[in-house]
Amino acid sequence: MNSSFPSDSVGLVKPQTYVFDEPLELACGRILPRYELVVETYGELNRTASNAVLICHALSGHHHAAGYHSPEDKKPGWWDAYIGPGKPIDTNRFYVVALNNIGGCHGSTGPRSINSATGKPWGRDFPPLRARDWVHSQARLAAKMGIGQWAAVVGGSLGGMNAMRWALEYPDRLRHCVVIASAMKLSAQNIAFNEIARRAIQSDPEFHQGDYLSRETLPRNGLALARMIGHVTYLSDELMGTRFGRELRRGTFERGLEAPIEFQVESYLRHQGDSFSGSFDANTYLLMTKILDYFDLAREYDHNPVKAFGHALCKFLVISFTSDWRFSPKRSEEIVDALIGANRDVVYANIESEMGHDAFLLPNPRYESVFRTYMAKVADEADKLARGN
Amino acid sequence: MNSSFPSDSVGLVKPQTYVFDEPLELACGRILPRYELVVETYGELNRTASNAVLICHALSGHHHAAGYHSPEDKKPGWWDAYIGPGKPIDTNRFYVVALNNIGGCHGSTGPRSINSATGKPWGRDFPPLRARDWVHSQARLAAKMGIGQWAAVVGGSLGGMNAMRWALEYPDRLRHCVVIASAMKLSAQNIAFNEIARRAIQSDPEFHQGDYLSRETLPRNGLALARMIGHVTYLSDELMGTRFGRELRRGTFERGLEAPIEFQVESYLRHQGDSFSGSFDANTYLLMTKILDYFDLAREYDHNPVKAFGHALCKFLVISFTSDWRFSPKRSEEIVDALIGANRDVVYANIESEMGHDAFLLPNPRYESVFRTYMAKVADEADKLARGN
Repeated sequence: MNSSFPSDSVGLVKPQTYVFDEPLELACGRILPRYELVVETYGELNRTASNAVLICHALSGHHHAAGYHSPEDKKPGWWDAYIGPGKPIDTNRFYVVALNNIGGCHGSTGPRSINSATGKPWGRDFPPLRARDWVHSQARLAAKMGIGQWAAVVGGSLGGMNAMRWALEYPDRLRHCVVIASAMKLSAQNIAFNEIARRAIQSDPEFHQGDYLSRETLPRNGLALARMIGHVTYLSDELMGTRFGRELRRGTFERGLEAPIEFQVESYLRHQGDSFSGSFDANTYLLMTKILDYFDLAREYDHNPVKAFGHALCKFLVISFTSDWRFSPKRSEEIVDALIGANRDVVYANIESEMGHDAFLLPNPRYESVFRTYMAKVADEADKLARGN
Repeated sequence: MNSSFPSDSVGLVKPQTYVFDEPLELACGRILPRYELVVETYGELNRTASNAVLICHALSGHHHAAGYHSPEDKKPGWWDAYIGPGKPIDTNRFYVVALNNIGGCHGSTGPRSINSATGKPWGRDFPPLRARDWVHSQARLAAKMGIGQWAAVVGGSLGGMNAMRWALEYPDRLRHCVVIASAMKLSAQNIAFNEIARRAIQSDPEFHQGDYLSRETLPRNGLALARMIGHVTYLSDELMGTRFGRELRRGTFERGLEAPIEFQVESYLRHQGDSFSGSFDANTYLLMTKILDYFDLAREYDHNPVKAFGHALCKFLVISFTSDWRFSPKRSEEIVDALIGANRDVVYANIESEMGHDAFLLPNPRYESVFRTYMAKVADEADKLARGN
């Protein structure tokens, strides 16, 4: 390990690829004949495999949740603030598994992968997915890794939906479910923002009905716009005010000048959009936002969340953030109410933050403290199980 | 008048065009050599011209604020709910003047008009405008109409900014200023949404750097996207939930079906975007959103709103709506605080509504009642002045 990494970092990490040759039946009725999952792990699996924690990523996430890929790497994994030695998800105690989900664009089987039936990238022909398809593929990964029961399944946003679905699909294969800044289903407003983002991608002439890869082009403009829309809705109005205010990047309000005025926030957003559109796959973006839109925890339980959670056996930690208007505290309270109605064990914290939806990724002493305290008990339990008492 | 129009309608109305040949010096330093304003009026101007009310429109508004353009016309003007005989802006008592502002695309001089210097449409060469340019062009219109002092200048959203600027530029030429769902300046979040909308237009390949008219094409997709973004932010999350919920328009969540699922809200938004993009001008949209972004009531008053309003002489009515998150009640409270600080006469009402920013256009008994009561006093005052006491 490079000594220049912070002491509370998991340090240098290396992704591994797991290959699954058994066909996966998907919720849409189609079959994925084979698939690969790119995985990173941090910490050590204990003797009885009682200390494994699964990290479920959100819309633009992936397997690289913590640590660094090279000694020169400046930027750690996306959840490095919460995963590492001594951190809330303590790698001195837990064996942490992070993966890129199927449908993703960071190495796991998705629209960019080669479809063995055609020898070409799947592209727009990649089957539509639901969160439960992720759960099933993750369950197979657990089996392959020798993990019979997760100490916890943890996720924020879309990852929180993934985690809740775990609790209903495989109730006896997780002891804790941590649901952060999430919801049992999206609101019409959320669906509307996703639809606009999709339309931005689909109306880019370089999209070619999703067939851009075979034409060796990319719908960069559309994807940048989609990201900009997402980004604004993930931040709070307060945060944007604090961070950018109405500061000018160029131009002036004095009359007589021809240079167009540009606010800081405009150039920031453009930068965010453009850098995202260079790395992310447009078909994956469409697929992921559809998983978000379709997710409805209680649909198959007579639309009754209490009945749905009646099938869960694990304990729950639910966390929301005051300024998150895309997945507001109200959505988390609905989860908590349903869990209480179903007589489930639940801890809930609504964390004061001005960071909007992105708060779940960012340092925050109160959030850290609640998360750390809860996970320490999960680790104690895992230790006890390992000792056989 | 067609008897089939409602009895509280102003009935059949006809726009008139006023031509101004005197050059208008703009805030940007450029000169508009001549311009035309399309105007509608409702009611009768009294003997002393003391009962004239100016209606300032918002981003996508125009001169057709009330009544019908033909006996077959199904849809009245955009503020018909509030302008008419017996309505809050009572045409039995007021002479109401509504216009399309310069820069607009409904008949007044704007990017679609012919630039007499070139013989071609202005297009992207139309000069950038500020709200004060509208005020100056409206002041000339008032002079031409023989209106020395408005009984009231009234506007919602961007129109409210226009109305406030009136109070500072020509303090002695209005007695009342009605500011509805507006703000002294946009927040960074608001600017961000506008920037995304502009980028959607500008990245449409049919935009041709604003030169689409001479190429006989239109950036329809970009404009539709821009409208969709605006539309979602003008509605509240609650309203969208009530109106659309998660209802499906087509498709089904049952597995095995290939038909893509589509939520009601998706098709509604697409319809909104597509119908707007067929009628509105993209360069006008860019120009109008820039006026919104640049507007900063107190910029030339040492950024001190109290100092700014110290220059006003009129009385104020300020109205906001609880669920309006684009121009939130907090923004209106800032206006009210500054007015109180400047010792101005102000009435403020925060109206309970779940309609979001669009509430200012829609029927609402409490809003109507506050507005009606205030305007009745404005009309009493106008009558008094007409009687010469």
